[in-house]
Amino acid sequence: MSNVKNRIKSSVKVPKTDNSKRSLQGHIRPVHQNVNVSILSKAASTNSRLDLHGFRNLAYIMLICSNLRLLVENYLNHGFSIPIQSLGIPRDDVRIGIYCTLLIPCHLLLANIIERTAIKTLKNKKNTSSYELWTQFAALHAINEFACLAITTLIVQFYVYHPLVGTILLVHSVILCLKVTSYALANRELRAAYLNNLPVPELYRSHPYPSNLAFSNLVYFWWAPTLVYQPVYPRSPNIRITFVLRCITEVCVLSLGIWFLSAQYATPILKSSIPLLNTREYALVFERLLKLASVSIIVWLMGFVVVFQSMLNLLAEIMRFGDREFYKDWWNSGSVSTYWRLWNRPMNTFFRRHIYFPLMKRGYGATSSTVIVFTVSAILHELVVGIATHNLIGVAFISMMLQIPLSLATAPLEQMRGPGTTIGNCIFWLSFFLGQPLNILLYYFAWNVRYQK
Amino acid sequence: MSNVKNRIKSSVKVPKTDNSKRSLQGHIRPVHQNVNVSILSKAASTNSRLDLHGFRNLAYIMLICSNLRLLVENYLNHGFSIPIQSLGIPRDDVRIGIYCTLLIPCHLLLANIIERTAIKTLKNKKNTSSYELWTQFAALHAINEFACLAITTLIVQFYVYHPLVGTILLVHSVILCLKVTSYALANRELRAAYLNNLPVPELYRSHPYPSNLAFSNLVYFWWAPTLVYQPVYPRSPNIRITFVLRCITEVCVLSLGIWFLSAQYATPILKSSIPLLNTREYALVFERLLKLASVSIIVWLMGFVVVFQSMLNLLAEIMRFGDREFYKDWWNSGSVSTYWRLWNRPMNTFFRRHIYFPLMKRGYGATSSTVIVFTVSAILHELVVGIATHNLIGVAFISMMLQIPLSLATAPLEQMRGPGTTIGNCIFWLSFFLGQPLNILLYYFAWNVRYQK
Repeated sequence: MSNVKNRIKSSVKVPKTDNSKRSLQGHIRPVHQNVNVSILSKAASTNSRLDLHGFRNLAYIMLICSNLRLLVENYLNHGFSIPIQSLGIPRDDVRIGIYCTLLIPCHLLLANIIERTAIKTLKNKKNTSSYELWTQFAALHAINEFACLAITTLIVQFYVYHPLVGTILLVHSVILCLKVTSYALANRELRAAYLNNLPVPELYRSHPYPSNLAFSNLVYFWWAPTLVYQPVYPRSPNIRITFVLRCITEVCVLSLGIWFLSAQYATPILKSSIPLLNTREYALVFERLLKLASVSIIVWLMGFVVVFQSMLNLLAEIMRFGDREFYKDWWNSGSVSTYWRLWNRPMNTFFRRHIYFPLMKRGYGATSSTVIVFTVSAILHELVVGIATHNLIGVAFISMMLQIPLSLATAPLEQMRGPGTTIGNCIFWLSFFLGQPLNILLYYFAWNVRYQK
Repeated sequence: MSNVKNRIKSSVKVPKTDNSKRSLQGHIRPVHQNVNVSILSKAASTNSRLDLHGFRNLAYIMLICSNLRLLVENYLNHGFSIPIQSLGIPRDDVRIGIYCTLLIPCHLLLANIIERTAIKTLKNKKNTSSYELWTQFAALHAINEFACLAITTLIVQFYVYHPLVGTILLVHSVILCLKVTSYALANRELRAAYLNNLPVPELYRSHPYPSNLAFSNLVYFWWAPTLVYQPVYPRSPNIRITFVLRCITEVCVLSLGIWFLSAQYATPILKSSIPLLNTREYALVFERLLKLASVSIIVWLMGFVVVFQSMLNLLAEIMRFGDREFYKDWWNSGSVSTYWRLWNRPMNTFFRRHIYFPLMKRGYGATSSTVIVFTVSAILHELVVGIATHNLIGVAFISMMLQIPLSLATAPLEQMRGPGTTIGNCIFWLSFFLGQPLNILLYYFAWNVRYQK
């Protein structure tokens, strides 16, 4: 018997001296010991939160790989299709562009001359009918502002062919027009305060009116990365040469990137969608639109960084301009209105200081003031895009005006916080993601109808 | 003079009684008051963390929209290309499939008969040379296990045409083979414990050896959603009919979904890649591979849910099987080895109980035990895929064996925690995301070479 036992033990490799339980090889170890529920069943039945964060990484990998696939597909279909030689800008456009670029800032000088004349005249003629004089100088400023926009608009409409040149000139004139407006409005109030001995903000003490009308002060405002005139700005202590060089590098690299993406990826999509728009095959156009959306959002983001981060910071560093909040974290916006408030701070600051709050002071409500601000912004958008592409088709205007209902729809979501903000953020991104390429497509189509048919 | 002042005041709408500062319209309100840094500059210079969570929503929107585009593109190119009538399974395959399905479980019955004979013989012949008997019964079990796999393999290789039928039969035979193995190994140890009066786990008290060899116990193990034999399992109290119905609905809906995705999206990609593989245009094949990857990962995930959540839970509910941890949260795995440990718990439990730990007890190191486990798994994978597609090309085997270096490479990342785990998780997903479709493509190609040339 003991012999048998030994043999059995040895056959299952049970050394005699070992603890008998450990000596078995574990084939009878109970592995199903407890009642357990599958994670997905549990989450479904008790509403407990599933930890799915790993799928986020999968989503990113899918996104990267599917875009990588599009790169390969694009290369196989088009090779490298970049016009290395030129952007196709006619020589005349360059010539007119240079004249305009030199001409536009003159309106700022004109505003300065009007203001100098105004204070000189009002000081000398204190006893004559100055009300009319105030109105006359206001009218002169208004004519100057209008001329700043109107001249460039007419030149671009009738003499500039290339949309890129047109866009640059129009953006330049809009910026200068807003600067002139701010300069005129601010100095008008400073003049009133000066003549009536009203107090002005502490910050402006070092350059009291009318000493702020000096030429150097004007030049500073001309180049400062702001649309809002102040006699005095907060300044940074010095110019960091490494920062300047980094900004310049960023501008060069990102501009090249934008050019490459536009030429290599966006242009073929736009070109291939023209026949589809002609034959009204809207399902195919929608497919093109979705394909364009990924490129255009990346180009837009790179454009945002190049302008609002690199260029404006470069300018600020060189001008020792202190307040560099050119944008806030608009990408986290829980509503469309928050986006518009955060993404373009210089423009937003201008609108608030010179349109929104003055309208409120005149008794307009918040909603009508907002509508007016968006309308002005919509007109400027249509002006830039519509004139530069020689097609005032109103799409940019309508797109901007649609921001008002979108803002109203997403504002309550943002106030809900948590998932509400996420939904609001998604609505903002979706409208942005699809709205941008739709605008591009329609203006490109209108351009083609005009010039290539 | 006072007249002039009044007129000036009225021209800028300054009511006399008002606080003079408030009465101006705010055009000189200082808006640039502080020195501020742009968020992106700040993050770059001080390494402070940028809050970019909004871009995550953009990533999801881009992913959804780009896949939506692929749906539109697919519809425009292929219409609805689903073979509604049949899956193309020959009638002979169905007949052979049914015979095999009935035959395979008989090996479990055989194992039971061998075990019954063993204990009867050993009890009666206590005084004869039982060492040889133990070896003989072990050999009988081994032959039975081998036969379970081998018979199905030969039948599928030589008589079954359709890969779907072949796969189902082979998976069935692998499952039964593992069940038979576990049944044999566990009962062998229970037998040894019984004959030597060694203690057995508390849980098994209610069904002591050899009463656990009863037919009802065998049938329960046959249908229980586990590969590991225990005389007693933890049980759930009752069968919830709503849960059963939900599982059945899930199985139907998800199976239809998998069928639709495979026929509508995966098949055209596979078909179009065959000529490219023939002409060895690897850049184009890579493009096809990336396109296939998105479909195959979704099909795989749906397949995972249908098998490991719906089917196994359905079976568990009907059998009142308590331990339903058929998977853990493998999607968050920080390393490849963690994935293999978590995703398929029944298989993992089998390997640990019957191969890994017994090997360790016999003095093998952790690494060599792991290598052996992966090798067995690799052989089984190649068996199922290679025989079902009639092409033992070794790709599935190699893919599984590559999991060993991938596991070794990602294990230190997981132990770093934080970003390390994220990188490990991404490596796991990427190898999965690209490895799956590569395998599918190669077996599909081999199949086409064999049957359509």
